[in-house]
Amino acid sequence: MEKIILTGDRPTGRLHVGHYVGSLKRRVELQNSGEYDKIFIMIADAQALTDNADNPEKIRQNIIEVALDYLSCGLDPEKCTIFIQSQVPELAELSFFYMNLVTVSRLQRNPTVKTEIQMRNFETSIPVGFFTYPISQASDITAFKATTVPVGEDQLPMIEQAREIVRKFNSVYGETLVEPTALIPENEVCCRLPGTDGKAKMSKSLGNCIYLSDTEEEVRQKIMSMYTDPNHIKVSDPGSVEGNAVFTYLDAFSRPEHFERYLPDYKNLDELKAHYQRGGLGDVKVKRFLNTVMQEELGPIRAKRKELEQHIPEIYEILKKGSEEARKAAAETMAEVKRAMRINYFEDAALIQEQSERFAAKHEK
Amino acid sequence: MEKIILTGDRPTGRLHVGHYVGSLKRRVELQNSGEYDKIFIMIADAQALTDNADNPEKIRQNIIEVALDYLSCGLDPEKCTIFIQSQVPELAELSFFYMNLVTVSRLQRNPTVKTEIQMRNFETSIPVGFFTYPISQASDITAFKATTVPVGEDQLPMIEQAREIVRKFNSVYGETLVEPTALIPENEVCCRLPGTDGKAKMSKSLGNCIYLSDTEEEVRQKIMSMYTDPNHIKVSDPGSVEGNAVFTYLDAFSRPEHFERYLPDYKNLDELKAHYQRGGLGDVKVKRFLNTVMQEELGPIRAKRKELEQHIPEIYEILKKGSEEARKAAAETMAEVKRAMRINYFEDAALIQEQSERFAAKHEK
Repeated sequence: MEKIILTGDRPTGRLHVGHYVGSLKRRVELQNSGEYDKIFIMIADAQALTDNADNPEKIRQNIIEVALDYLSCGLDPEKCTIFIQSQVPELAELSFFYMNLVTVSRLQRNPTVKTEIQMRNFETSIPVGFFTYPISQASDITAFKATTVPVGEDQLPMIEQAREIVRKFNSVYGETLVEPTALIPENEVCCRLPGTDGKAKMSKSLGNCIYLSDTEEEVRQKIMSMYTDPNHIKVSDPGSVEGNAVFTYLDAFSRPEHFERYLPDYKNLDELKAHYQRGGLGDVKVKRFLNTVMQEELGPIRAKRKELEQHIPEIYEILKKGSEEARKAAAETMAEVKRAMRINYFEDAALIQEQSERFAAKHEK
Repeated sequence: MEKIILTGDRPTGRLHVGHYVGSLKRRVELQNSGEYDKIFIMIADAQALTDNADNPEKIRQNIIEVALDYLSCGLDPEKCTIFIQSQVPELAELSFFYMNLVTVSRLQRNPTVKTEIQMRNFETSIPVGFFTYPISQASDITAFKATTVPVGEDQLPMIEQAREIVRKFNSVYGETLVEPTALIPENEVCCRLPGTDGKAKMSKSLGNCIYLSDTEEEVRQKIMSMYTDPNHIKVSDPGSVEGNAVFTYLDAFSRPEHFERYLPDYKNLDELKAHYQRGGLGDVKVKRFLNTVMQEELGPIRAKRKELEQHIPEIYEILKKGSEEARKAAAETMAEVKRAMRINYFEDAALIQEQSERFAAKHEK
């Protein structure tokens, strides 16, 4: 069986280092591993509209930002299919039929949906599209017969819902769909970057994100004003590394060779942490090191982005071609689905034959 | 503005005289009135699947039955577009976007959905597709820019939901969709036939239906064993016409000329009722009259059906052509909808221009 990946992002803003560390970097590695036959990367505009229905302009503006971020990080349209969800109508059509296989109470029990409803203050008035988005996600995954969906642990209930739909569909209509598997990062710690203010989640509205498209100076300023340990006042004070955003970022970005090159007094991050904890190491020194390390990683991405930004029509062309490719794949699955459900009446010669004979038999009686 | 009708039926069984009196007969009149620019008649297989997901074969078998019933009654593919819902994928796509404009609590308050959930014993486990079918209906109506939807009073909340979606869509994305109006029958009494057993609704499972496709003998037997007034035991007893199925059927089918021709002792139905109420009129006599009247109406339909049943492939061809026509109309609306939502990125030259300029300006700084 082919190994196929489906993954993607909602185009509600530029991507930040949280996206990079949490999924984007790994996605590029998976792409370059050569282990996957097909990789579909979806810019989920239709899903973003489920809770942004009255602001489609935000989505419209951010599609190109996400595409630029993708390509800057090394996603390669020769190796993966980057597409826009709304340009593949089969995804909506598939959702429509999957909705018959899931009960309202099953959706209400979905923990991811529950959490997101709370986060968005939707308690009394959830849009139906938002409420049903686990079904839509199942459709996105199965339309491409994805075997592998790279996600964080918090997204596991979504994959479970997709698997349930596949099993239900196959048991009712015959073996047709492929059951996907979640691909969880081995090292969960490096996958959840806090905001620069130490808050658990990066969010545009909190202004606590470092964007992949930030300038060198913007990144430096954000790092130098980052949240550390509020009780670490004098250099000589012992400091805490837990909940200290600078060290969480170092967990994600620094490698032993960075120490050799830029901070040779320490062999590795453990030694740096130990010094910080016993006192005598100032925040500024640590932040400067983090800045050096992060600029080294973000520099090439920024340079690539700058170049790509001068070729906007070509980027749209890539998205168009990707969407056509994706549509072709989804349409094939959709045809199989209709065949399995036997609602492909007009290509079903047996049906017409069988009904003709049935009525002929009736008249002979 | 064009006057456009959208209407249809779920293909879960052959159509019966309840359908005929309640909608089909009027539909043919509307078709022949020449007052409408377009008439779309939908065989709602996708909607039927929302609560028959595990029995698609039932739907598959009954599409041809419904089509035969339509054509036998005088619906004319030259004057109206008869199509199969699932063959117009734009209807599912449109639903998908409308779902963002309706809240879960709004659906929960829909009285028609509430009633149908009770009827189907769905309390704990409604399929999502069934729960959301008012949105799907709004999509069916608006995809064809229908101005007029012939419905019974019980369906008014569905039309109201469609109107709400239209208003919401037009206010968020700009004037695009047409607000439909319900066309309620003037004479509600003749539009709800009870079952032959006197139960309020005809239902296949209760075996209390007279089908348009029943033979002359089947119709006669069903009429002769119809529920009347259980207290009308002897001919001389006074009888009740309220709740008496035979008289409700006469309300729907008999006209003064029938009396002149077949029962000249009475000028009209009122006189027949008066005699029954004061006593002295036997059920058998009334039933025989009803049989004569109904056979006169159903005879030509039956003959036409018999003829059509010998041309099954042609009927499928009519449905195929109708579905293609319907799809063309729905695709036009869908394109307008995407344009209004501004998610028609690849045909939106202004978007590409505007984004190119935005990035150029950024680099000039």
